Amino acid sequence: MIEAIRWSREAVLVLDQLQLPRKVEWVRCVRSDEVADCIAAMKIRGAPAIGVAAAMGLALGAREPAAREAVSLADFFAVISARMAATRPTAVNLTWAIGRMQQAFAAALPRGLEAVRAALEEEALEIARQDRETCAAMGRHGATLIPRDARVLTHCNTGSLATAGSGTALAVIREAHARGRVKLVYVDETRPYLQGARLTAWELAQDGIPQRLIADSMAAFLMARGEVDFVVLGADRIAANGDVANKIGTYGLSVQARHHGVPFYVAAPLSTVDVRKATGAGIPIEERPARELTELAGIAIAPEGVGVWNPSFDVTPHQHITGIITEVGVLRPPYWQSIPEAVLKSGETSGFSTA
Amino acid sequence: MIEAIRWSREAVLVLDQLQLPRKVEWVRCVRSDEVADCIAAMKIRGAPAIGVAAAMGLALGAREPAAREAVSLADFFAVISARMAATRPTAVNLTWAIGRMQQAFAAALPRGLEAVRAALEEEALEIARQDRETCAAMGRHGATLIPRDARVLTHCNTGSLATAGSGTALAVIREAHARGRVKLVYVDETRPYLQGARLTAWELAQDGIPQRLIADSMAAFLMARGEVDFVVLGADRIAANGDVANKIGTYGLSVQARHHGVPFYVAAPLSTVDVRKATGAGIPIEERPARELTELAGIAIAPEGVGVWNPSFDVTPHQHITGIITEVGVLRPPYWQSIPEAVLKSGETSGFSTA
Repeated sequence: MIEAIRWSREAVLVLDQLQLPRKVEWVRCVRSDEVADCIAAMKIRGAPAIGVAAAMGLALGAREPAAREAVSLADFFAVISARMAATRPTAVNLTWAIGRMQQAFAAALPRGLEAVRAALEEEALEIARQDRETCAAMGRHGATLIPRDARVLTHCNTGSLATAGSGTALAVIREAHARGRVKLVYVDETRPYLQGARLTAWELAQDGIPQRLIADSMAAFLMARGEVDFVVLGADRIAANGDVANKIGTYGLSVQARHHGVPFYVAAPLSTVDVRKATGAGIPIEERPARELTELAGIAIAPEGVGVWNPSFDVTPHQHITGIITEVGVLRPPYWQSIPEAVLKSGETSGFSTA
Repeated sequence: MIEAIRWSREAVLVLDQLQLPRKVEWVRCVRSDEVADCIAAMKIRGAPAIGVAAAMGLALGAREPAAREAVSLADFFAVISARMAATRPTAVNLTWAIGRMQQAFAAALPRGLEAVRAALEEEALEIARQDRETCAAMGRHGATLIPRDARVLTHCNTGSLATAGSGTALAVIREAHARGRVKLVYVDETRPYLQGARLTAWELAQDGIPQRLIADSMAAFLMARGEVDFVVLGADRIAANGDVANKIGTYGLSVQARHHGVPFYVAAPLSTVDVRKATGAGIPIEERPARELTELAGIAIAPEGVGVWNPSFDVTPHQHITGIITEVGVLRPPYWQSIPEAVLKSGETSGFSTA
C-alpha cells in the first residue's frame, strides 16, 4: 500500500497527489512552511492525512535553525502552528492534530529545545501510528455491513493517500473485498479535483479490486437501475448531531441514496467529530479557486473569466446517514446520543481544547 | 448569435465544438460521410442541430459526383441515409430529419438528379428555418414560466450550438433574460464532455447573461441553500408518456429538484417526441468510449486501463417533470394525454414513418 507521507528527521516527504496518476513524485520539505504549502495546494489531502502532515510539519519546524535562533521558542511554535492551521478550513483533524502537538510542545518546553524536538517527533509518529490502527479498526467494523456480492459506490479518495493507513471508507471497502463481499466498486470521478479518477481508481487498481469509474452525475442513474447496493464515503468534519461535512457531491449522493433506498454510510475516525459544532450549519465551507473548475492541467476547459462557484465541501444532514463507521464501532441514530457517548468514552475530546 | 452549421452548395461548414472555447474552427465537409463523421465525433451535437446537420449532409450527398455515377440513385441515397442514421442512437430528431429528407427525395426522384438536388437543398434549409422558428416559439412560451429575479439552473448545452436557432432551454433563458427576469444562470459543467463549461458558458458570456459555472455535483448543495428557483434543460428523445431521455445527469437533477421543491422544466421541439416509444424504458441509451472520461485533451486523468461506465444519456420519469416547453406551448401532466394531442395537432408525426 502506498504511503502519502514519510518522516525523517531531516525532511518530510510528501507524495505529490497533483501528479497522480501520471507520475509518482515526492516533494521533499525541510521547513514547516513547505509542509503547510503542500497542504494548502492539496499536494496532500484527505482529512486524516492532513492531520498527520500537519503534525509532522510541526515536528519538522522544531528542527529548523529558526527554532534555535528564535527569541521565544513558544512564540516560534505559535507562529508555525497558526500557519499550519490556516491551510484548510474544513477538516477538523487538522485542528485536532495541531492541538495534540501543542500539548506535547507545552509539556516538553520546560526541558528545552532538544526535549521539544524529541517530544514532537514522538507525538507526530504516534498520531500516524494511531491513524493506521484506526483505519484497520474502521475496516473491520464496516466490512460486516456490506452485503455479499455488493456493488459499492464511493466518492472522492479515502484510502492510503488520504490517511496514514488503509483509509476510512476505502479501508472498509478493502476489508470487505478481502472477505469476498465486494463484486464491484463504482468510483465517482469527483470533480473538480478528480480525487476519485486520479487517486481512488489508482489505489483500487493497485489492489486489484474490480471497479468502474463514472462521472459524478451518473450515480443517480446507476441507482435507478438498481446497480448500487451500498454507499460508503468519508468525512471532513462531523457535527455533534451527526451532520457531515465532506467532499462536494456527498450531499447530492445522500439525497439520491435516500430516494432509491440505498444504505448510505460515512466512515471516519472520531478525531473528525467536532463536538463544539452542534449542527452542520456551523461548519465553515472552504471555497477554492475558480481555475480548479475552468482549467485542467493548464488547459482551459471554460471561457476566460467566467464566474464560478467552487465549494470544496457540502453538508449532509444526519437524517440521510444510515450509520457512521468509526474505530470504536458503527454509530447509529440518534447521533446526538451515540456521537457524544463514543467521543467521551474514547477520550478523543482532548484535541478540541486548543482550536 | 453563433451558428453551429452553415450550408453552401459546395460544402457544409461545421463549427468544431470539440475545439471550443479555445478556438473557433470550422470543418469543411464536401461529402455526406464527412458530415456523418462530424456528428459521430460530436464536433456538432445537440438533438436539433444533429437533425439539421443530417439533413444538410444528405443534401450535400446528392451533389457528390458519386450520386451521378451510381447505378441506382435510390440505392445511393439509401446508403448515405443509413450511414447518417447510424451516427448517434439516442436523439430522435436525427431519425425525424432523415425521414423528412427521404420523403423529399422520393417525391423528386421521378424528375431526375437535378430535381432531387434542388428538393433536398430546399428541404434541409426548410428544416433549419423551422428549427429557428421553433426555438423562438419555445423561448416565448417558456419565458413566462420563469419567476422574476430568478436563479436558473441548466445542464449541458441547449443553445445556438445545439440548434439552428437560439436554442431549446437556452432559448427560454435568453428570452426570460431579455424580459429582465433572470438574475443568474447556474451552468452545470456537464461531465464528461463538458458541454456546459465549454459551450453554454461560452454562449452566455457572448450574450452578457450573468452566470456561475459549477461542477455537476454542486447542484444539490445549491438547491439545499435555496439558491435555485427554476431548472430548465433540453431533451434528446421524449416518450409518449413524457419520460425524457437527455444528457447524463438530467435524471439526478430531477431527483434533486423534486427533493427541494424546485420547478423542473424540459424544453424541446415536438420533433423530439417519439410516439412509438410508450415509455422511456424503450429508448436506446448510447454508451460512449472510456477515454471521454479517462482523458482530457489527450491528458490522462485516470489510471491506464481502468474500467469505465460512460452512458451519454439517462431517462427521467415523467413524474419528475413540471412541464415540457414546446413550440406549440407548455405541455402539462398527464403527458400521455397532452403529448399525443400536441403531436397530432402539429402534424409532426410524419417523420416517424421512416424510422
